[in-house]
Amino acid sequence: MFKKILIIGCGLIGSSILRGSITKKISKHYFVYEKSHKNIQKIKKISNKIRILKILDNKLSDVDLVVLSTPMSEYEKIIPNLNRYLNKNCLITDVGSTKENILKLKNKRLSKSLDWITSHPISGSEVSGPEYGTKNLFVNKWCVVVNDKNKTKQNKLLKFWKKLGSKVIIMDAKTHDKIFSITSHLPHLIAYNLIKTAQDFQKKQKKDVIKFSAGGLRDFSRIAASNEIMWRDIFFNNKKNIVSAINLFINNLNSFKKNIENLDDRTLRKKLTNSKKVRQHILSLKQDVAKPDFGREQD
Amino acid sequence: MFKKILIIGCGLIGSSILRGSITKKISKHYFVYEKSHKNIQKIKKISNKIRILKILDNKLSDVDLVVLSTPMSEYEKIIPNLNRYLNKNCLITDVGSTKENILKLKNKRLSKSLDWITSHPISGSEVSGPEYGTKNLFVNKWCVVVNDKNKTKQNKLLKFWKKLGSKVIIMDAKTHDKIFSITSHLPHLIAYNLIKTAQDFQKKQKKDVIKFSAGGLRDFSRIAASNEIMWRDIFFNNKKNIVSAINLFINNLNSFKKNIENLDDRTLRKKLTNSKKVRQHILSLKQDVAKPDFGREQD
Repeated sequence: MFKKILIIGCGLIGSSILRGSITKKISKHYFVYEKSHKNIQKIKKISNKIRILKILDNKLSDVDLVVLSTPMSEYEKIIPNLNRYLNKNCLITDVGSTKENILKLKNKRLSKSLDWITSHPISGSEVSGPEYGTKNLFVNKWCVVVNDKNKTKQNKLLKFWKKLGSKVIIMDAKTHDKIFSITSHLPHLIAYNLIKTAQDFQKKQKKDVIKFSAGGLRDFSRIAASNEIMWRDIFFNNKKNIVSAINLFINNLNSFKKNIENLDDRTLRKKLTNSKKVRQHILSLKQDVAKPDFGREQD
Repeated sequence: MFKKILIIGCGLIGSSILRGSITKKISKHYFVYEKSHKNIQKIKKISNKIRILKILDNKLSDVDLVVLSTPMSEYEKIIPNLNRYLNKNCLITDVGSTKENILKLKNKRLSKSLDWITSHPISGSEVSGPEYGTKNLFVNKWCVVVNDKNKTKQNKLLKFWKKLGSKVIIMDAKTHDKIFSITSHLPHLIAYNLIKTAQDFQKKQKKDVIKFSAGGLRDFSRIAASNEIMWRDIFFNNKKNIVSAINLFINNLNSFKKNIENLDDRTLRKKLTNSKKVRQHILSLKQDVAKPDFGREQD
C-alpha cells in the first residue's frame, strides 16, 4: 500500500500504528523519528524492519506516508522539514485530538504542494510510551478523518485506517471539535478536577481519604493519570468548545445541587434513571465491555 | 459464629453476604426476607440452606444476626418488627452508605434493649440484584464499622466482616460521612451530571455523540448506571457534606476554566501532573487494578 512510512513521534499511538502496519504489511519500509533516547531503545526491539532517523533530511524524499504522532504542540516545529524534504506524492496525516487548530496550522505553514489530511483515532489510555502500544489498538475503534478536497488521498487514508482495524468516519473539523469536547475533553477535565478536589479535601481535613477510593474515586484517577502534555495541548486548542462544555456542566450541577437541597425526589430520580439508559446505549453499540465493573478484578 | 442469620433485602450486597456466610460456615441457619418475587426465585437457587421468610414474625425470636441490606429508605418501616420480635442477644447491622442518618434513626426508633451497630462495606458495582452477588465481593475491600459502646458486639461484628474477607476499620459516623462524600458520593454525582450534560448536548446539537464515548465518557456511564433508589437515598441523607463537596468542586472547576481561558501553561500543567500521583498512590494501596484501561477489552 505504501513504500515508505515515516512515524514522527513514536509513543503509545505511534508505536501501535507501527506494529499494526508491520503486521498488516502496509508498507515496504518503516522509518521512525523519535527524540527520546529511552523510547528509541524500546522501538528498536519491536521489529528489525524499523529504521530510526536521527534527523529529518533528504531521506524523506521518497516517503509516501507521514504520520505525526507527537504531542500537537510539536507539529509547528516539524513542518519546515516536511516542506523542505517531502515530495508532492506523499500523504501526511496526524493523530491529534483537536482538528480546527490543525487545519489552521496546515493552511498557514504547510507548503501548498503538500497534502495533509488530518485524522483522529479514538483510542489510547492513561499510559504513554511505545512499550504500551499494541497492533490491535485501533481494532473496532472509530477513526475520524477530516473531510478533504483531495479525494484520492482521502480514500487512501481511509483505507490505511481500515487496514489497521478502525471503523472510519468522515467529519468536518468544526463538528469533530464540538463532539469530542463533550465525549472526551470534558470527561478528562472533570476527572482531573475531581482528583484535585479530593487532594484539596485531604489536605484541609488532614485525613487519608485516597485509601477509600474504591467507592468511585478510583475510576476517575485512571483518566486523571493521562499524559499532561497531550491534555494541556487539547484543552488549549479546543478552548472555546471546552469552556462552553464546562458552563453547561456547571449549570447542570447547580440544578442537581438544588434538587438535593430541596429533597426533590421526582426530579432527582428522573435524572438518575435517565442516565442509566446511556450505559445501555453504549453497551449496545459495543463501545465498552458489558461486564459489571469493567470486568475488573483486584491484583 | 451465629445460630441464625437473617438478611433483610437480598440484592447484590445482601446475596453476597449470604453466599460468603454460607461458604465460610458463619451460621447454622440462613433466613432471607425479600419483597421482590423475582429476586426470591433467584435466591432460592443459591443454596438449599436458605429459608425465605414471607413475613417478619416470631420466627425472628432466636435470630442472632440481622443484616439490613435494603435501600436505606426502607429501614424505618422494618424497625417496628425488629422491636417486636428480636431478643436482646441479637446483633443488628446494616450496609447503608451514609451513617449519621442511621444513628439518628436508630436512636429515635429502635427499642433501647436492642443493639444495632452500623457498617459500610466499600464494595458494589453498577449492577443490582442477587444474581450479581459473589462470595468474594468483600475480599480485601474496606468495611467501615461505626464505633459503638457495646464492645462485645462490636468485636463480634468486626469478626464477621473479617470472615467475609474485609479489611475492617472503626470510624465515627461524622468522619465516615465526610470522607465518603468525597471518595464516593461526589464521584457518583459528577458521573450522573456528566452523562446528563452529554444528553443535553446531544439533544441540542441533534448529533449522535454517545457513539463516540470511547474517548472518556464511557467510563462515567458505568458509574451513572448505578441504582437510582440507593443513590437518591445517599444524596438526600448526606446532603450537607455533598453540598460542600459540590461547592469545592465548582470552585476548582472555575479556576481550571480560567487557566484554560488564559492559556496558563504553568498552573494547568502543575494540576495535570499532580493528579497523576493520586493514581500511583491508589495502585500502591492495591485499591485498583494496575493494568492500563482497567485491563478492559472489548467483547
